[in-house]
Amino acid sequence: MANHVYKKIELVGSSPNSIEDAVNNALAKAAKTIRNMRWFEVVETRGYIENGQVAHWQVGVKIGFTLDEDE
Amino acid sequence: MANHVYKKIELVGSSPNSIEDAVNNALAKAAKTIRNMRWFEVVETRGYIENGQVAHWQVGVKIGFTLDEDE
Amino acid sequence: MANHVYKKIELVGSSPNSIEDAVNNALAKAAKTIRNMRWFEVVETRGYIENGQVAHWQVGVKIGFTLDEDE
Amino acid sequence: MANHVYKKIELVGSSPNSIEDAVNNALAKAAKTIRNMRWFEVVETRGYIENGQVAHWQVGVKIGFTLDEDE
Amino acid sequence: MANHVYKKIELVGSSPNSIEDAVNNALAKAAKTIRNMRWFEVVETRGYIENGQVAHWQVGVKIGFTLDEDE
Amino acid sequence: MANHVYKKIELVGSSPNSIEDAVNNALAKAAKTIRNMRWFEVVETRGYIENGQVAHWQVGVKIGFTLDEDE
Amino acid sequence: MANHVYKKIELVGSSPNSIEDAVNNALAKAAKTIRNMRWFEVVETRGYIENGQVAHWQVGVKIGFTLDEDE
Amino acid sequence: MANHVYKKIELVGSSPNSIEDAVNNALAKAAKTIRNMRWFEVVETRGYIENGQVAHWQVGVKIGFTLDEDE
Amino acid sequence: MANHVYKKIELVGSSPNSIEDAVNNALAKAAKTIRNMRWFEVVETRGYIENGQVAHWQVGVKIGFTLDEDE
Amino acid sequence: MANHVYKKIELVGSSPNSIEDAVNNALAKAAKTIRNMRWFEVVETRGYIENGQVAHWQVGVKIGFTLDEDE
Amino acid sequence: MANHVYKKIELVGSSPNSIEDAVNNALAKAAKTIRNMRWFEVVETRGYIENGQVAHWQVGVKIGFTLDEDE
Amino acid sequence: MANHVYKKIELVGSSPNSIEDAVNNALAKAAKTIRNMRWFEVVETRGYIENGQVAHWQVGVKIGFTLDEDE
Repeated sequence: MANHVYKKIELVGSSPNSIEDAVNNALAKAAKTIRNMRWFEVVETRGYIENGQVAHWQVGVKIGFTLDEDE
Repeated sequence: MANHVYKKIELVGSSPNSIEDAVNNALAKAAKTIRNMRWFEVVETRGYIENGQVAHWQVGVKIGFTLDEDE
Repeated sequence: MANHVYKKIELVGSSPNSIEDAVNNALAKAAKTIRNMRWFEVVETRGYIENGQVAHWQVGVKIGFTLDEDE
Repeated sequence: MANHVYKKIELVGSSPNSIEDAVNNALAKAAKTIRNMRWFEVVETRGYIENGQVAHWQVGVKIGFTLDEDE
Repeated sequence: MANHVYKKIELVGSSPNSIEDAVNNALAKAAKTIRNMRWFEVVETRGYIENGQVAHWQVGVKIGFTLDEDE
Repeated sequence: MANHVYKKIELVGSSPNSIEDAVNNALAKAAKTIRNMRWFEVVETRGYIENGQVAHWQVGVKIGFTLDEDE
Repeated sequence: MANHVYKKIELVGSSPNSIEDAVNNALAKAAKTIRNMRWFEVVETRGYIENGQVAHWQVGVKIGFTLDEDE
Repeated sequence: MANHVYKKIELVGSSPNSIEDAVNNALAKAAKTIRNMRWFEVVETRGYIENGQVAHWQVGVKIGFTLDEDE
Repeated sequence: MANHVYKKIELVGSSPNSIEDAVNNALAKAAKTIRNMRWFEVVETRGYIENGQVAHWQVGVKIGFTLDEDE
Repeated sequence: MANHVYKKIELVGSSPNSIEDAVNNALAKAAKTIRNMRWFEVVETRGYIENGQVAHWQVGVKIGFTLDEDE
Repeated sequence: MANHVYKKIELVGSSPNSIEDAVNNALAKAAKTIRNMRWFEVVETRGYIENGQVAHWQVGVKIGFTLDEDE
Repeated sequence: MANHVYKKIELVGSSPNSIEDAVNNALAKAAKTIRNMRWFEVVETRGYIENGQVAHWQVGVKIGFTLDEDE
């Protein structure tokens, strides 16, 4: 286990509701093509404003996954 | 559209409930005097503690708005 | 009041639900041994992934408390 | 002269042509309402892409100006 | 009190004497037009040199003030 | 639109002429395999020197693109 | 001597007078319970404002001390 | 040569022995699918602890490689 | 397991031999009083020079450990 | 070649025209006394304003050069 | 004047009394060999502790000076 | 001793073997012309890759030395 290699990719998820949902949306998208995701790191939190209110949150995440059998 | 100029201001919103509410409170306050707000960036998340619990969240946001016809 | 001295410690709280709950869990743990906690600063937001979803949020917080009569 | 006070504001200028033009556009806009601008600092360089090419550069600048007789 | 909104502005104060005086000069200038200033954060310390000596200190401060009844 | 997910990749473009050209070269290369590029962020500006002059500029850019139908 | 281990803690000292006094106050408090303090690093300089003037300086310091015989 | 475009990816290599071995393991893994790797930058050094000792080092590296004929 | 709380402390280990040994020395010292150490993060690498050579390496590490039954 | 040692110095070049010219002016000056310059890194981009326009760009560069036969 | 080139060097001055004196001591030393010093930037503030008190302040400064006729 | 002034220079050492050797090579080079070197700080760790393996490590170090009788 000690010699695992991980790859980190950076996604930006968005949601009209919350920071957590924006992260979940990014993970759900990534899960369609990446196996073995292990951890994420929030690297940026921002969003767009419409009519003086948050229209949607945009949250940057780095996602780490194991590069062992595949890729 | 390519030559727009934007101004960024920095506010700190607070809320006893959540990070998202603290941001919303800052935007609601700003919307009273600023038109054309377009985006925000969370730059700091902190808060005050009372009786060993979060009393209120304090979230710093930079807000970008268009400087075109006005100001 | 002007000559207060504060100490800051760094904890990481976790929660399967939200960033706010992870912070609350860290504060609840700290409150068992520390009196006079005054403020916190979120310094890191990350988490573990299981089955392509957030398994739990892990939020690093610095907690400031008064060092006056005790410690 | 030694006791001058300066204020710094943050603008984002844009231009389809170059980083320098984006800064110039921000300054030209600011010059309509601010006297005594002295210096700027580039704090962010980014841009939008259309059809695989730079559509316009967006350059964040902090602008410092003297707060002496006015404002 | 929990829903206060604060605005942060950035000034640069200067003084031939000390870092503290440069901050004080910035605050004194700001106090002429801003009510309800609450805290400051030193973000930059620099200065100009003449004849091999400090001619004046220039200290950048962010100043936070309450946006409640006014502005 | 609010639930878009974006991916960010990091390229380094180079050019003997200018920072802008180095960015353009990176985008042109990326456009051969990536659809739906939306924005870029300059993260590093450096270059190689030959005979005491700039031989070529090397500019690091993060490029954001929509992950919606594909990948 | 080469294998010493040091611990660093973070305090915030305050003083109505100066940055230096705020640091001294933090050290004086720490000296009551910590032996063998060796060095400090200023990590944050801020303060509270009352009536448009500095009410007190608040200076964050990391303090390093030897962990050899004790703790 | 002046118009080369490079891509940077971020991996985390691990090793029970040393920082250098963790980097080497990341490179060896990457070399299975990437041609033309040119340089790396260490961006993070951490590790897991078991029984009070380093169980394995985990070293984050950005790897730059030429995007010229391929990808 | 999802609601664990961790504490992070910062030590500086030293060694005449290598960065790895300096980290190991810090961990060995910490292991005398802390149970349940889980991970470390290298935050600073420096050292002292004597006679134009490295006399000893000094490596700052943050160490995370579980706060569950104890402390 | 593997054991080369490089020195990095920091210059600030200025130009009324462009960022690139400011860098070129710094290199031209350095080339009068330094042989074997290999690379540069832009570390700061700022400038002075006169009459509401850029008077000159000031660009900070770190320059790396080989320390092999000389110095 | 627009094409001036400046060099920046980094010194650490020390003083038992104050941050300002530590900077002044660094400048006084530099003034013995460098002409045309123009500005400084404080980049680090730290110090040594003896007997639980500040023994001396150590302040890192970058000093900028004109490279025009000389060097 | 309290009023010492130090100068810091930045070198990049390289080695095919290890980070430590790269630092040692930088110090050995510096020791040929600089007396009284006291400490170093590692500021960057990177390297070149050949044939999918580390060809040589390149480690940036800032070196501090006393400016007292000489220079």
